[in-house]
Amino acid sequence: MTNKLRIIPLGGLGEVGKNMMVLEYGKNIIIIDAGIMFPENDMLGIDFIIPDFNYLADKKDMVRGIIITHGHEDHVGGLPYLLQEIKAPIYTTKLTRGLAEVKLKENHLLDEAELNTIQDGDRIALGPFRVEFFHVCHSIPDGVGLAIETPVGLVVHSGDFKFDYTPVDGKPPNFAKLAELGGRGVLALLSDSTNAEQAGFTRSERAIDGAFDQVFQQAEGRIIVATFASLISRIQQVVNAAIRHDRKVAIAGYSMVKNVGMAQELGYLSIPPGVLIELGDIDKLPHHKVVIIATGTQGEPSSALARMSIGRHRRIKVVSGDTIVISAHAIPGNEEMINRTINRLFQQGANVVYEKIAPVHVSGHANQEDQKLLIHLIKPEYFVPIHGELRHLTMHARIAQEMGVPAANTMVVENGYILEFDGESGRIAERIPGGYVFVDGSGVGDIGPVVMRDRETLASAGFVVAVIKLDKETGQPAGRPEIVSRGFVYVRESAELIERAQDKILKVIEKSDGGRAAISDRVRTELGKLLYDETKRRPMILPVIMEV
Amino acid sequence: MTNKLRIIPLGGLGEVGKNMMVLEYGKNIIIIDAGIMFPENDMLGIDFIIPDFNYLADKKDMVRGIIITHGHEDHVGGLPYLLQEIKAPIYTTKLTRGLAEVKLKENHLLDEAELNTIQDGDRIALGPFRVEFFHVCHSIPDGVGLAIETPVGLVVHSGDFKFDYTPVDGKPPNFAKLAELGGRGVLALLSDSTNAEQAGFTRSERAIDGAFDQVFQQAEGRIIVATFASLISRIQQVVNAAIRHDRKVAIAGYSMVKNVGMAQELGYLSIPPGVLIELGDIDKLPHHKVVIIATGTQGEPSSALARMSIGRHRRIKVVSGDTIVISAHAIPGNEEMINRTINRLFQQGANVVYEKIAPVHVSGHANQEDQKLLIHLIKPEYFVPIHGELRHLTMHARIAQEMGVPAANTMVVENGYILEFDGESGRIAERIPGGYVFVDGSGVGDIGPVVMRDRETLASAGFVVAVIKLDKETGQPAGRPEIVSRGFVYVRESAELIERAQDKILKVIEKSDGGRAAISDRVRTELGKLLYDETKRRPMILPVIMEV
Repeated sequence: MTNKLRIIPLGGLGEVGKNMMVLEYGKNIIIIDAGIMFPENDMLGIDFIIPDFNYLADKKDMVRGIIITHGHEDHVGGLPYLLQEIKAPIYTTKLTRGLAEVKLKENHLLDEAELNTIQDGDRIALGPFRVEFFHVCHSIPDGVGLAIETPVGLVVHSGDFKFDYTPVDGKPPNFAKLAELGGRGVLALLSDSTNAEQAGFTRSERAIDGAFDQVFQQAEGRIIVATFASLISRIQQVVNAAIRHDRKVAIAGYSMVKNVGMAQELGYLSIPPGVLIELGDIDKLPHHKVVIIATGTQGEPSSALARMSIGRHRRIKVVSGDTIVISAHAIPGNEEMINRTINRLFQQGANVVYEKIAPVHVSGHANQEDQKLLIHLIKPEYFVPIHGELRHLTMHARIAQEMGVPAANTMVVENGYILEFDGESGRIAERIPGGYVFVDGSGVGDIGPVVMRDRETLASAGFVVAVIKLDKETGQPAGRPEIVSRGFVYVRESAELIERAQDKILKVIEKSDGGRAAISDRVRTELGKLLYDETKRRPMILPVIMEV
Repeated sequence: MTNKLRIIPLGGLGEVGKNMMVLEYGKNIIIIDAGIMFPENDMLGIDFIIPDFNYLADKKDMVRGIIITHGHEDHVGGLPYLLQEIKAPIYTTKLTRGLAEVKLKENHLLDEAELNTIQDGDRIALGPFRVEFFHVCHSIPDGVGLAIETPVGLVVHSGDFKFDYTPVDGKPPNFAKLAELGGRGVLALLSDSTNAEQAGFTRSERAIDGAFDQVFQQAEGRIIVATFASLISRIQQVVNAAIRHDRKVAIAGYSMVKNVGMAQELGYLSIPPGVLIELGDIDKLPHHKVVIIATGTQGEPSSALARMSIGRHRRIKVVSGDTIVISAHAIPGNEEMINRTINRLFQQGANVVYEKIAPVHVSGHANQEDQKLLIHLIKPEYFVPIHGELRHLTMHARIAQEMGVPAANTMVVENGYILEFDGESGRIAERIPGGYVFVDGSGVGDIGPVVMRDRETLASAGFVVAVIKLDKETGQPAGRPEIVSRGFVYVRESAELIERAQDKILKVIEKSDGGRAAISDRVRTELGKLLYDETKRRPMILPVIMEV
């Protein structure tokens, strides 16, 4: 068997290749990114989701390196879990490393992790792979794309990217490098599909400045800007606007405080002395001199902004005259919580400015025209849309086809499919088993479909446990069964229903001539029927039979 | 006390005045609309929500009439519940009546309900109120707005509306009537705020025709169009496109079949003979001759489209070559389910066309410029934005202020606030108690905060019931406690944890010198602590103590 290059996006549902990709050649593997997914609304109780690492289980020795393209949770958040399985050197830029170290420290893994700092232009050799890093613009600084020389050809991975000619951090995209890669001949381009549904070019981060100026000019009271804690350039823009409009800046929210501190320390955020004030000191200044930067753009109940919206923030009480700017985009699934937060802030008397009514946010991902530009520069033989749901990948593949990539060479796959390149041609090979793993509390992977189904039933109609005492001599009921129920009806007002349930159980036992299992089954069926008839609800029913 | 006009939007969270409004003068009340709300994602197990009718409880005799402005669920769906409390004549247009009758029949209320059919231009007297109905365009035919002469002045209620100069049903808005009302002098305009965040004019329904033509021209296989079952004009447009492109039409989905039947019968949908075929007959035709109209635009798991997307539709198996058009807008909170459905349809090999990538839907509500036009025509003294969340009402009030309505005369309120007009001036008065009522199965209002909190706990980490047997003589444990748990851990793989839980309980009892209540409390605390330490989850813990 000759060696082939295998490219495998790992993970389950959701975005393809977003959290992890594997490149494999012979007995060599490199891993790109190690992120987490956030659960969808119907994944009850789940904290987050990580890719299933099972494919790597018997290939641990083959892993030459782990590359993290940038510091967002969906690219770095799973690193502590991966490192518990795989020991391999990690390669990241400075800021990404800073963010990774915080996570590794929390998980007592920092000492054993082998972290290497790389930067734009660096080249490293990982087994047969020669990886060159190139800077990309994104909604967090210090993101990189990858040019990977493999024995069968050059593979380019875009990372999460946008083209921003006037980025806030002054580091524009490196078109010369991209063109040079294209000139060398690229076997496959793996490119960010997030915005493949969005026409046109993505606007520069600078576009925000004008919108901020307008808000700052009109605001008569305090200004509270909510944004992502990792969106360092946006934080810089708020600081700059505050300076232009002669306001001081305070920071609210645990992750915002932490990130601002780290970004300043590492040199990614520049705040002149005297601009930053303590959150506890905001009341010492007149309202029109204050800007607060806060977490909470997604309406997360524990965030600073959500707590403000219900009057439960320890330090900040929203008052009439406050202007609140939500400088972020709704992550799908969060719309309801975000809208609720906006409504509540209006209710508190604030003026709320958000993406739908003013240009206070721009995306960190390439729109269709930017995607075309990348394809044009790279001129790949094969095109693999990544970082998107199937609908995004499909659109992105169409874009590549419009640009001249043959349809047969655009490879739209879900996570787990193997893309195979043998030097002659590429093909979509089989799918590996496995998918994703639920993390719930300290449990990794122990929550499967059974527990999830139970949670769904419990969420929709609660449970009824019937403790049935049987005389161990006669097999007859020793007293009335005890009913314990929650989430089904309001027990205090349902005495009559509970009594009817007890009567029904006694009747079932009376008629039964089977053993405990048979009684249990019959109780479940008959009680279920009674409760459905009475309430049109289907609680989980659990008989517990005890012999006394 | 002189008589005052009171206008009260009823309901709780969400859109103001959407589901029900009350107009009260002296001992006379008219009710406008009787709708339901759909639960948000975190209202676990709730089927739907109706307004709290408590304000009307001691005013039942005062209700002179119930007016339903149009046939959408959020305006008519609560009628069966209202009629169980209030007996009063109902006034609706023909189609709305047809839809209401179906609901009343299902609830065995049709015989006792007094239904009156009204139409554009009709005038009726309800106590001191003289109500004139005027036709409005919306995403369901036969909608009306209301001009209500009250003893203190003329009140205009827009209903849900858009201005469509080229509507599919040929019934444009009646600008002459609106201008005539404006000329008479209007005390208050109550106007639809749904799209107050949307700039510009709402496009005509006709705009869809071009998009449909393009899809129909390009589709090589079957075309499946999903839309709202109540969006009769859209169904007409699909039928018209099918005729233009020489295809037959089949209908899928219970509510779609029902509505198409009724709309045809009542004359709101015109389908020439031979166009409609049975769903069971679609396989008798070549794929390029078939169009299917289906339910499921919101990704509802039981809908025709969702079942197709996972290969579980009884009649329709999606295949490569099928084109699926989602001709609808995402209702906030449904984005995740819709995206999932789209991804799954792509996965089945279909081409999916949806609002984000092609103009296959237009809104049924007025955008900002249309809202301005209505205000301009009506020239109200007071402006009351309704039919929207607080964020929409706030925007709409700003629009009215731009149009010259004094800020003090724009009344942004939440549901339950009383707007009071005495002939001299208007003011926002007190808020009435009450809000909304959960409907869960056959239970109306029995699910309150206690049960909802329990469902949340159960959804996030399940429950642990510990059945503890105590010897009634000694008070000592009679054997090991029995643990019943669901939704917490996968019980089959957690034998060791369960055993530790049992040990912990025995230890607690051993140390305890209190009664049953004290033991119960201690078990709950100590067991909770153990389980959290072991799993970092917080299941609901319920000790059941039995003396044997």
